[in-house]
Amino acid sequence: MAATRMVVIGGDAAGMTAASQARRRKGPDELSIVAFERGRYTSYSACGIPYWTGGEVDGPDALVARTPAEHRERGIDLRLGTEAVEIDLDRRRVRTRAVGDGTYEWTGFDHLVVATGAVPRRPAAEDVPGIDTDGVYGVQTLDDGEAVLDGLGRDGVRRAVVVGAGYIGVEMAEAMLRRGLDVTVVDRADQPMGTLDPDMGALVREAMEGMGIAVEFGAAVREIRAGDDGRVRAVVTDRAEHPADIVILGLGVAPDTRLAREAGLPLGEHGGLLTDFSQRVRGHDGIWAGGDCAEVFNLVSGDTEHVPLGTHANKHGLVIGTNIGGGYATFPGVVGTAVSKVCELEIGRTGLTESRATAAGLRYATATIESTGRAGYYPGAALMTVKMIAELGSGRLLGVQIVGREGAGKRVDVAAVALTAGMTVERMTSLDLGYAPPFSPVWDPVLVAARKTAGKLRE
Amino acid sequence: MAATRMVVIGGDAAGMTAASQARRRKGPDELSIVAFERGRYTSYSACGIPYWTGGEVDGPDALVARTPAEHRERGIDLRLGTEAVEIDLDRRRVRTRAVGDGTYEWTGFDHLVVATGAVPRRPAAEDVPGIDTDGVYGVQTLDDGEAVLDGLGRDGVRRAVVVGAGYIGVEMAEAMLRRGLDVTVVDRADQPMGTLDPDMGALVREAMEGMGIAVEFGAAVREIRAGDDGRVRAVVTDRAEHPADIVILGLGVAPDTRLAREAGLPLGEHGGLLTDFSQRVRGHDGIWAGGDCAEVFNLVSGDTEHVPLGTHANKHGLVIGTNIGGGYATFPGVVGTAVSKVCELEIGRTGLTESRATAAGLRYATATIESTGRAGYYPGAALMTVKMIAELGSGRLLGVQIVGREGAGKRVDVAAVALTAGMTVERMTSLDLGYAPPFSPVWDPVLVAARKTAGKLRE
Repeated sequence: MAATRMVVIGGDAAGMTAASQARRRKGPDELSIVAFERGRYTSYSACGIPYWTGGEVDGPDALVARTPAEHRERGIDLRLGTEAVEIDLDRRRVRTRAVGDGTYEWTGFDHLVVATGAVPRRPAAEDVPGIDTDGVYGVQTLDDGEAVLDGLGRDGVRRAVVVGAGYIGVEMAEAMLRRGLDVTVVDRADQPMGTLDPDMGALVREAMEGMGIAVEFGAAVREIRAGDDGRVRAVVTDRAEHPADIVILGLGVAPDTRLAREAGLPLGEHGGLLTDFSQRVRGHDGIWAGGDCAEVFNLVSGDTEHVPLGTHANKHGLVIGTNIGGGYATFPGVVGTAVSKVCELEIGRTGLTESRATAAGLRYATATIESTGRAGYYPGAALMTVKMIAELGSGRLLGVQIVGREGAGKRVDVAAVALTAGMTVERMTSLDLGYAPPFSPVWDPVLVAARKTAGKLRE
Repeated sequence: MAATRMVVIGGDAAGMTAASQARRRKGPDELSIVAFERGRYTSYSACGIPYWTGGEVDGPDALVARTPAEHRERGIDLRLGTEAVEIDLDRRRVRTRAVGDGTYEWTGFDHLVVATGAVPRRPAAEDVPGIDTDGVYGVQTLDDGEAVLDGLGRDGVRRAVVVGAGYIGVEMAEAMLRRGLDVTVVDRADQPMGTLDPDMGALVREAMEGMGIAVEFGAAVREIRAGDDGRVRAVVTDRAEHPADIVILGLGVAPDTRLAREAGLPLGEHGGLLTDFSQRVRGHDGIWAGGDCAEVFNLVSGDTEHVPLGTHANKHGLVIGTNIGGGYATFPGVVGTAVSKVCELEIGRTGLTESRATAAGLRYATATIESTGRAGYYPGAALMTVKMIAELGSGRLLGVQIVGREGAGKRVDVAAVALTAGMTVERMTSLDLGYAPPFSPVWDPVLVAARKTAGKLRE
């Protein structure tokens, strides 16, 4: 009997975790595994690129969790420089093109894992003339990281403009600051961090300005101007011209689902593949999807969204590999947790913002409090602002946003678990959270927020 | 109509929070509030004493959350230096003695709040000769802290022996290290931190030795030896004699319930007052108890225990004050969360240890993992060890213990919420916890532990 064949498209977190996990459960005589990756790296941490380009961590090798050689040693037929160009669902085969010599090949599959990841959003050249100018960089792959470092190494680079003030934008702003550059961040939104409510985003903005980052919000980029040498010279917005020797595009990413769309696989309203709880593509036995090319179910809002995060991609891969390997695993969904930092500022969020809650048809109360992360008298105690949102009537927690210094970011984890459990804020007021002066005031900031929110609900 | 009278015994967290909260809800015309405190401080953080004596924080004023004057301004008739000596339940009155002039007085009440706190455990002089020698200090009140600082200020003090290696013991060991002393910790248990399983306690022990703290475990203190000047000279155990210029007793505390016992109020097997969910003393309308003199219900074990922690005391006070003030509040119970640190080492625990689980009639699986608290490549990533315990059959989380460096301690909060929600470890494997390289690896250590524990449950 011939072995079952598993074909993986995409050699990063979701795809290679699926491959590794399936291999752990089934040997080569039972399951053959072929993985296609168009680049030259596997299983790498794109999330590490800001710290690599900022000089805090080495790269690119340190960002690779498992090398191609390691995957091959584990019995995975990994083909680098090989791009999947077509999925033929009827004949259950994938067509690939070798990046090197351009030769095409068909490979049959019993199980197909679509893990094609995401592509950075990039304005079209007709919308923003000059967007392809030398010195304008995206930040998605390790090759992008390398390119940014090359750009930084050029003579006379001292002014950076970061376009986009989401996670990647603010992290890259920190990276450029660390490189000693003058940094300007521009975004068409009125505040940074669109995943926060505007009142919390305003705190991030203030902190960024305090770090010496110039910001222009509420302004769209109109043009990237080049100098006579063809290299970037300035970023022009509705209102201003920002001189720039290097430009970083931090506009977020969109699911890379061209192949899936052409094959007729179901996509959600955010452009990502739709899967069931087992990460099987909806309605397609033997076709699986995970990572940045898939949408995820949000347990709080009850709809799907696109959350490109390595932690989800790894979980998806584990679930897919377990299921293909004959086990049983599910990914129940997310609650929308994300953490980030800009220099000393930590930002955490989970659940729904006010606008998301309203869009989901929910009515709510909110409360915002300030508290130290340690006992007020303990050295290093610094303020954080916690905003909590809870449903009217049920009193159920809907979301938490935290902006502050040390200890602020990961404090949203408590709320993430409470959201998962469908806990009310009233119940949260008496949560038994760890207390000792170096770690928390007697009332943890999350508890203080819960108390105030519970009070609002009673009004 | 005469105002209802609320009498509070004990001027620290539980009692004064109850008084303040009741006052917030009812003015002096509706409710008169009298509070008796035998010492001279109110609302102070005893948990801060190790950091004060270690020189990290100022004291004692910084450790006082609200001064007597502030309480009085809020309309609380606070009587310092006044010790309650008898509770007369039949006639609903409390007898007090003025510490200054020894005069006695009766005060009637409608509501009585028993918040008498805890007393440090201290061996009897017949069991440990010399225990009352000059230079032997307990650590419970701000006056104790003052005494330790006086002791440290004496000439020639360079060797400290800490008796007891629980929370207060290890924190005081750090404090003595910070003061530049040679530190020895002795405990009759085989490992420090009896609230951890021995395998996790062993990690704390190793770390303490690595910090240059001398330790002797599994040995009882037999005698405290004094020099010719009457001051402490050595601590003698079963096996050794440890030279000492200062001795700190960190043997934990017991509920201070002499008054309550004499009045016939119900006590639990740990010697603390038994209350219902509203913090009313069981079976006694209008009699309330909270803080270190009360036992708390453990939601995981299903029985009551004594957990002297300021965070519980504050919550109890809030619940009592709300209820006396005409509102409605409850304290549902604890899950046994505690965090601590010794120098750079962080220790967190929540739920049941193996022995507690066994004592509760539960069968379980355990798993222990090592992981970094940040992405492995991110600067400062340091290892932590996470042990997880889950019930066979149901798969329900029973407990988590974490020992490690930065970010280890408060990570138990995630497990504390999961315990509160009765979550299974299988469900925990897909929790949406915050991920970014400076905050966590793609698999948070708690998730790694949950995965391994879930695997054990399937075996």
